[in-house]
Amino acid sequence: MAAAVALGAAARGTTAPNPNVGCLVIAPDGAILGRGATRPGGRPHAEAVALAEAGERAQGASLVTTLEPCNHRSHRGPTCTDLILQSGVAHVVAAIEDPDRRTSGEGLHRLRGAGISVESGIGAAEARESMAGWLTRMALGRPRVTLKLALSIDGKIALPSGESKWITGEDARAHVHLERAHTDMILVGRGTLLADRPRLDVRLPGLEERSPRRALLSRGEPVEGWEMLASPEDVFRLHDVNDLLVEGGSATATAFLAADLVDRILLYRAPIIIGEGRQSVGYIGLDAIGDAHGRWEPRDGRRLGIDRLEVYERVRQPGPASLDFARD
Amino acid sequence: MAAAVALGAAARGTTAPNPNVGCLVIAPDGAILGRGATRPGGRPHAEAVALAEAGERAQGASLVTTLEPCNHRSHRGPTCTDLILQSGVAHVVAAIEDPDRRTSGEGLHRLRGAGISVESGIGAAEARESMAGWLTRMALGRPRVTLKLALSIDGKIALPSGESKWITGEDARAHVHLERAHTDMILVGRGTLLADRPRLDVRLPGLEERSPRRALLSRGEPVEGWEMLASPEDVFRLHDVNDLLVEGGSATATAFLAADLVDRILLYRAPIIIGEGRQSVGYIGLDAIGDAHGRWEPRDGRRLGIDRLEVYERVRQPGPASLDFARD
Ligand SMILES: NC(=O)c1ccc[n+]([C@@H]2O[C@H](COP(=O)([O-])OP(=O)(O)OC[C@H]3O[C@@H](n4cnc5c(N)ncnc54)[C@H](OP(=O)(O)O)[C@@H]3O)[C@@H](O)[C@H]2O)c1
Ligand SMILES: NC(=O)c1ccc[n+]([C@@H]2O[C@H](COP(=O)([O-])OP(=O)(O)OC[C@H]3O[C@@H](n4cnc5c(N)ncnc54)[C@H](OP(=O)(O)O)[C@@H]3O)[C@@H](O)[C@H]2O)c1
Repeated sequence: MAAAVALGAAARGTTAPNPNVGCLVIAPDGAILGRGATRPGGRPHAEAVALAEAGERAQGASLVTTLEPCNHRSHRGPTCTDLILQSGVAHVVAAIEDPDRRTSGEGLHRLRGAGISVESGIGAAEARESMAGWLTRMALGRPRVTLKLALSIDGKIALPSGESKWITGEDARAHVHLERAHTDMILVGRGTLLADRPRLDVRLPGLEERSPRRALLSRGEPVEGWEMLASPEDVFRLHDVNDLLVEGGSATATAFLAADLVDRILLYRAPIIIGEGRQSVGYIGLDAIGDAHGRWEPRDGRRLGIDRLEVYERVRQPGPASLDFARD
Repeated sequence: MAAAVALGAAARGTTAPNPNVGCLVIAPDGAILGRGATRPGGRPHAEAVALAEAGERAQGASLVTTLEPCNHRSHRGPTCTDLILQSGVAHVVAAIEDPDRRTSGEGLHRLRGAGISVESGIGAAEARESMAGWLTRMALGRPRVTLKLALSIDGKIALPSGESKWITGEDARAHVHLERAHTDMILVGRGTLLADRPRLDVRLPGLEERSPRRALLSRGEPVEGWEMLASPEDVFRLHDVNDLLVEGGSATATAFLAADLVDRILLYRAPIIIGEGRQSVGYIGLDAIGDAHGRWEPRDGRRLGIDRLEVYERVRQPGPASLDFARD
């Protein structure tokens, strides 16, 4: 399952509105007969790719997938459940069930009914993590929002003059580009557009093609080449975005945090003290320190060159699956 | 040597103006015959304590010490070099030589001359770390200054109202108390005294006796029970303080950083976002981001409950040993 998760995770940022699933077809002797990840734009599905590679050899083999195979018909092709039944696969292992309540468990149920041995739940945590954007969209009706901040020890994003190049070093910036390659859309505020004219593209060898769509937070006029969001709440209109990366500046970060529309923070911390400078976050509605606690959980931390990456995730009660935003 | 370093490290904060040395006397079969650390106030020295415990059994044994035994006479007792010669010890291992240039290497030289086998340099890095306060005083003529900050993710120390209780949790606060027990003096600014009336004592079971001296940074009137510093530069007058812990607030942290009088930062980072609030550090003379780099090195990082401790050390070129601040 770890290999299937890795295949799916690599496709994150390219498969919306569909989930970035990973799939392997494995022979009884352990040989890998087929590998697949959801293709750009969401079709073909990972199972279809892996089964096509395996061909005849899928007969009697195992299929390992990070998400329950789809079972609701689409005009874009046959369901993966049908493909699996036709392939002659003998075992199916799925990490998680389809969160779409219309079909949750149905695909696995049909496979079992056809005499295929089915396991589910293996590697569920890793699979959830790899598809967190899509799962957030299923649960909350909007993309997973990741806020990126590059801060000094004392939490500043720039000098009073606005100078912010460079707070972090090359390794941290390369990591930002990798994250961009795994996101469907990047957003900045108009202040950052005007100050920095950021390209927001992916400048990593081999991943240049993965530069995401660009969006601007502004109440003002549209800007050519940018999709417009007039408020953070407009993320609920983004039905074809699984992962949204918010890259600043301070007013934009503050607006998203105040609206409680940030699910994850990628914080690149440089070992420098700026002192007087621009703060990273303004008033977010907090009036007592006690209310600030229990909202953010540290999930990862590591050195990136001389800087440090800290990942925080918003602690939320799991909500009901949404019915309106299924894949196709 | 690790055990000797641990003995000496435990005495940090109690031995000024002398170094917190650790010492073991070990029999040829490995049995530990004597243990010593510099006693409160700096006398007896660690070697004297360990040799006294070993008694006659020191004959032919090894003596392991974190610092070269003293060799310059004092009215407070015989030199450790003399004590070692009298004891009949056969081997001496010292982690580092005495940085006091009047005697550096002299003690070990005399021991060698008397036919004792002598090694030095073993465990030097750990020994230096354990005596960093005293070594800073030897090199720079002032205590090692540690700045403690309890910050949110976004670098705030309080709400706009000044409310700062509690940013960090119990484990972080216990760690602060442990650090207090290992410092000779704590300093706060008058603003923090007025706002928080901090006790600055050690509230850890068994360490209550280790509450350090308290100092106030203020240009104003003296306050009973507090030693007064009229400016950060007054640390050069503290000849009997190896380790000084600066606990805030913002103006005080800024003044020490602007004067480049901070050697180490203990940063307790809570996983909360405060947004609008009091900044941790103000103008420290920085006018270009580039000038901020290369000054602070991350030295340690670990979880303390839900918080995280980050330790940064000022990167400095090693200076010449001072002649004026020797131990006695
Ligand atoms: N260190 C870092 O991680 C980092 C990252 C990015 C930027 N920066 C720095 O941050 C600075 C720019 O930050 P900034 O705070 O001035 O600008 P900003 O957040 O980039 O942009 C502010 C603009 O965003 C729009 N906006 C903000 N909140 C909104 C809301 N609730 N609804 C609709 N529109 C909203 C408004 O645009 P309209 O006025 O058009 O309506 C506002 O003027 C620059 O100096 C840049 O270099 C640092
Ligand atoms: N989160 C944390 O880690 C933490 C820690 C401590 C405090 N705090 C918070 O910080 C706030 C207090 O901070 P603050 O900045 O207002 O006050 P502060 O730094 O504690 O004290 C300011 C005072 O220190 C003296 N001072 C500052 N710089 C000086 C210099 N260069 N030379 C001589 N004296 C100098 C002055 O005293 P005179 O006016 O008497 O000359 C000045 O008024 C409180 O809200 C407290 O709760 C937070």
